[in-house]
Amino acid sequence: MTVQTPVQVDETTMANAIRALTMDAVQAANSGHPGAPMGLADVATVLFNRFVKVDPADHKWPDRDRFVMSAGHGSMLVYAINHLLGYADMDADQLRNFRQMGSRTAGHPEYGHAMGIETTTGPLGQGISTAVGMALAERMHNARFGDELVDHFTYVLAGDGCLMEGISHEAIDLAGHLGLGRLVVFWDDNRITIDGPTDLSTSMDQRARFEAAGWHVQAVDGHNPEAIARVIENARKDLRPSLIACRTTIGKGAPNMQGSHKVHGSPLGADEIAATRDALNWPHDPFVVPTEVKAAWEAIATRGANARANWSARKEASPKAADFDRSLAAPDAQGLNAAITAYKRRLSKDQPKVAARKASEMALEVVNATLPNSVGGSADLTGSNNTRTSAMKPVSRNDYSGDYIHYGIREHGMAAAMNGIALHGGFFTYGGTFLAFADYCRPSIRLSALIGVPVAYVMTHDSIGLGEDGPTHQPVETIASLRAMPNLTVFRPADAVETAEAWELCATSEATPTLLCLSRQNLPTLRTTHTDANLTARGAYVLRETAGARDVTLIATGSEVEIALQAADMLAADGIRAAVVSAPSFELFAAQPAAYRVLVRGTAPRVGVEAAIRQGWELFLERSDGFVGMTGFGASAPADELYRHFNITAEAIAASAKKQINKG
Amino acid sequence: MTVQTPVQVDETTMANAIRALTMDAVQAANSGHPGAPMGLADVATVLFNRFVKVDPADHKWPDRDRFVMSAGHGSMLVYAINHLLGYADMDADQLRNFRQMGSRTAGHPEYGHAMGIETTTGPLGQGISTAVGMALAERMHNARFGDELVDHFTYVLAGDGCLMEGISHEAIDLAGHLGLGRLVVFWDDNRITIDGPTDLSTSMDQRARFEAAGWHVQAVDGHNPEAIARVIENARKDLRPSLIACRTTIGKGAPNMQGSHKVHGSPLGADEIAATRDALNWPHDPFVVPTEVKAAWEAIATRGANARANWSARKEASPKAADFDRSLAAPDAQGLNAAITAYKRRLSKDQPKVAARKASEMALEVVNATLPNSVGGSADLTGSNNTRTSAMKPVSRNDYSGDYIHYGIREHGMAAAMNGIALHGGFFTYGGTFLAFADYCRPSIRLSALIGVPVAYVMTHDSIGLGEDGPTHQPVETIASLRAMPNLTVFRPADAVETAEAWELCATSEATPTLLCLSRQNLPTLRTTHTDANLTARGAYVLRETAGARDVTLIATGSEVEIALQAADMLAADGIRAAVVSAPSFELFAAQPAAYRVLVRGTAPRVGVEAAIRQGWELFLERSDGFVGMTGFGASAPADELYRHFNITAEAIAASAKKQINKG
Repeated sequence: MTVQTPVQVDETTMANAIRALTMDAVQAANSGHPGAPMGLADVATVLFNRFVKVDPADHKWPDRDRFVMSAGHGSMLVYAINHLLGYADMDADQLRNFRQMGSRTAGHPEYGHAMGIETTTGPLGQGISTAVGMALAERMHNARFGDELVDHFTYVLAGDGCLMEGISHEAIDLAGHLGLGRLVVFWDDNRITIDGPTDLSTSMDQRARFEAAGWHVQAVDGHNPEAIARVIENARKDLRPSLIACRTTIGKGAPNMQGSHKVHGSPLGADEIAATRDALNWPHDPFVVPTEVKAAWEAIATRGANARANWSARKEASPKAADFDRSLAAPDAQGLNAAITAYKRRLSKDQPKVAARKASEMALEVVNATLPNSVGGSADLTGSNNTRTSAMKPVSRNDYSGDYIHYGIREHGMAAAMNGIALHGGFFTYGGTFLAFADYCRPSIRLSALIGVPVAYVMTHDSIGLGEDGPTHQPVETIASLRAMPNLTVFRPADAVETAEAWELCATSEATPTLLCLSRQNLPTLRTTHTDANLTARGAYVLRETAGARDVTLIATGSEVEIALQAADMLAADGIRAAVVSAPSFELFAAQPAAYRVLVRGTAPRVGVEAAIRQGWELFLERSDGFVGMTGFGASAPADELYRHFNITAEAIAASAKKQINKG
Repeated sequence: MTVQTPVQVDETTMANAIRALTMDAVQAANSGHPGAPMGLADVATVLFNRFVKVDPADHKWPDRDRFVMSAGHGSMLVYAINHLLGYADMDADQLRNFRQMGSRTAGHPEYGHAMGIETTTGPLGQGISTAVGMALAERMHNARFGDELVDHFTYVLAGDGCLMEGISHEAIDLAGHLGLGRLVVFWDDNRITIDGPTDLSTSMDQRARFEAAGWHVQAVDGHNPEAIARVIENARKDLRPSLIACRTTIGKGAPNMQGSHKVHGSPLGADEIAATRDALNWPHDPFVVPTEVKAAWEAIATRGANARANWSARKEASPKAADFDRSLAAPDAQGLNAAITAYKRRLSKDQPKVAARKASEMALEVVNATLPNSVGGSADLTGSNNTRTSAMKPVSRNDYSGDYIHYGIREHGMAAAMNGIALHGGFFTYGGTFLAFADYCRPSIRLSALIGVPVAYVMTHDSIGLGEDGPTHQPVETIASLRAMPNLTVFRPADAVETAEAWELCATSEATPTLLCLSRQNLPTLRTTHTDANLTARGAYVLRETAGARDVTLIATGSEVEIALQAADMLAADGIRAAVVSAPSFELFAAQPAAYRVLVRGTAPRVGVEAAIRQGWELFLERSDGFVGMTGFGASAPADELYRHFNITAEAIAASAKKQINKG
């Protein structure tokens, strides 16, 4: 907690380096957002100069502070700082190529594009909400490994947009409730949004609002370094999460444009840039930073390198070193495979008839017993999502050693927090809600996919099979909308065996989030013959082959595989040979070699079966093939009546199959 | 504002009728949520008995109070009240068939299923946020037609879930900012959620939070009728929106189960129901309400009928009567068609090269000049979405006569408010954001579709064509995910003419919301030959036919139609006859007769072109057909470089076409 004294060059000059690099990069790109970086330059400079501990030479150092630019359009702030700190991959050419093809300096900070970017931001409200997950993970990791190995802060710069978005409400309530004192949020209180002054659209007393959520709240002149330093010290000391309202001038330094929404998202132009150089007394050429200013910034990196070295020494001496490393490493895939395989063998023998959500809980008992760093949760549907396994205990502000998070009725905040937990490292994390409410957290699921964090979404009540709750709760288009998302693997398992296989894949995924669609209603065990191989890993497979050439192939997912098998029996009684394919994951099937896909799809006519819309089924079906599913919203009634009402029955499948065969 | 004195039967007895009907209906269904209706029965009874003005004999009476059960799982509260008030379509049989196929008493209140249901609720937070739109529409309508014709309240019952959801933050900030004093929200402060006590997951001081948003806040014992009446009187008088924190006991009346999360979402069971009958001194058979209790409730309806009769007399005498009726009637489709047709004629002649978002603004100038009750807005992207036309002026708390709403950075709150404005009646409403942020408001878009309100979503920056802002802002899967939604018509117009045609369809849609995907980048006018007919209404049409049999059909949407035409030129140079189809709306094309669809698709091989994923294109394409588009997330770079990088070019289309032809 030691606070360094500032170095020789004053912090306003250090901040002006950010301002100059920002306006020059935006000008070179002829596109971008100078307002926020120039307005926040003083806050960011004091924060980094006196407090932030990072080591640019070891950007993945686990005990580094996390810095999140939630107002992601102000990406040049991040790039300028990382350039000034001396990150090896952020040279001046990167700044010159701001927003250009192939550069690391994308329009918004993209995780993985450059070192020192802790998460992808841009969609407003995501950064602050992801940071809540990071700050929670820090405390949970700390509870396991102590102050010696885990002792860092999460700092967030957020704008009015971040605080107006609904997700911020979910995030700050969660952070206040969990007492995340290591989270410090700077609000860029510049009173400007794109449409104009904030009083066009909001009358919120943000400070009172954060106090209502249990936060420590301070306000400060965002251009007064000593005052900024004081409030940061207070924030770090307080046991509550902290909001610092920083009264700033957007585009600070541009003499004729600062303070106006015109400086938010457009280049300043050559004239104003020249005037800004004069006003800031910054006569240097574009992208040139004087040696002494660079040295002042690099001293921050040196301080960080020393801290990292001390930490490494502590770790080497720690009896927990091996466990610590293991918590950050890839999961024990071999161990999990052995456990899941043994469990599958039992299932194929015992043949339980359980809902997929219950099968998920049973599989999670195996996963959680095998992976010690598994952390689960639910958005207030624990008993319905079956997400809490027997040995789990809740995380609370008084005890972070738990491994189950009661996220409250906050799907969006949950998903963002999951992203933050995964990005922080140390945990495999999953969270549950009803599948229909995937829509409530879709922006954060998209970020899971874009960032590439292997979080797992447990989404139960996955069709009209949920029954009486009716169309608001019944996914119809939801599965298709999720399959549409790049880099997301969606599973819809047909029985307890497939559910176990899916969980093995979820828990060992490396850079792809996963999402399980799970039935509310009971399903029999269909995989009654054990295989060591994980058949779900192939996305789709022949569950029942015909003796002799196929007349038709029935392809189904989840709760409809059972019905497809019944249809095959009915067809067999009529002398028709119907193969049945179970297709638990479209994405994994699409990734199989062509020869395998041809084998599974077959050359006979096909009928697809899913209690959802047909969109996306072109992976399996020709346009001329049949489909038994939904074409509109559901209804409120008992599940079995709904299946009959919407004609998703063995009879309907058999009829469609016969129609296909007769066409041929 | 006159307050009626209570009738003979005491309000606790009237409330017990709600309790009894609820527990009996849930028991009969063996499914449902007794906790909230039983807990809120006293609040609802006092509210209706002393304040609410509705006329069950004229359920669409424009000046009725709006009552929204935001905690939609407590639907039996609505059904019980509407039964007791004597709505003709809510007899005891409907209650007996709670949650059964074909009944009006769906698991959650579904708009249109029964009279007196003002909106569909169930997805939490939607009711309160939709109500904000209703209360805003009331004030806007009042500003146009005066207290004589428009003078009603919007009452909301909301639970902890509604207030934990992020959308509630957007809604309450907007309501506070706009000073919606006719909005009164009752918070069912029962300190219970599904997972258990609220202190498992929240520490929010809700009262302080609403005060921070500029609300008038009171607290009351939710089981004390006189106290409840007093706070409602205060709330109605205050000029701010009001929150009334009602301390209630969930499941109140069930002696052994009340106060526990176990009473939230399951039947009480026969024993507890018997015990509750004893405790409430309610010896009547299930679904039987004694005459004097029914009479007490029906007196409310009589009071409402009188108020409605007085209102009708006022209206008959009003010089504004005709305008008032017109504001609530279907739009002037004929007038709009004439204006749009004349405008299209000019466009085909002038051939402007403008972005689709700019073309949208130009079309909106025509729409807004023709439809006097058009109300626009944007989630803080007015200048980017081009949603504010020249004559529009902002709505503010000081002046509700405006017709443009600065929604702030609140996509979700905007969409819900739009639903509320449309449900209230009196306005055609649209609102804008970036297409990528459709995800932020998707749950409310889904409700637009499920309810069937013809709101229009203006979603600009519709592809990688937005350029440097990068993958977080670039829709790739978004269009497919929206086309997946039942009862939503998605448009992606190719030029200013199609944009005008699409707007004509949006503004005259009756029971289907519409969504425009609009380019950021400039597009030439492609429809250079004027047609009176609205070609966009057919969903897809042949923009350029071949002389002689087609060798290939290129089918494109939006900004890619221009590129497809270039490809056709390139192919022509090689002697290949390529027709070009523009497909601005998949949903409208799917609704065309088969013969038309065959004509457009043709029998030659096809290449689909859209800067998005292929999913959903099976409407036009065989599996063997070609597709030029995206397969993953975008990148940050200038738009033209991105098109080249992702190979969405005339060359790529031509190459794909040749490949298709050579296969055949």
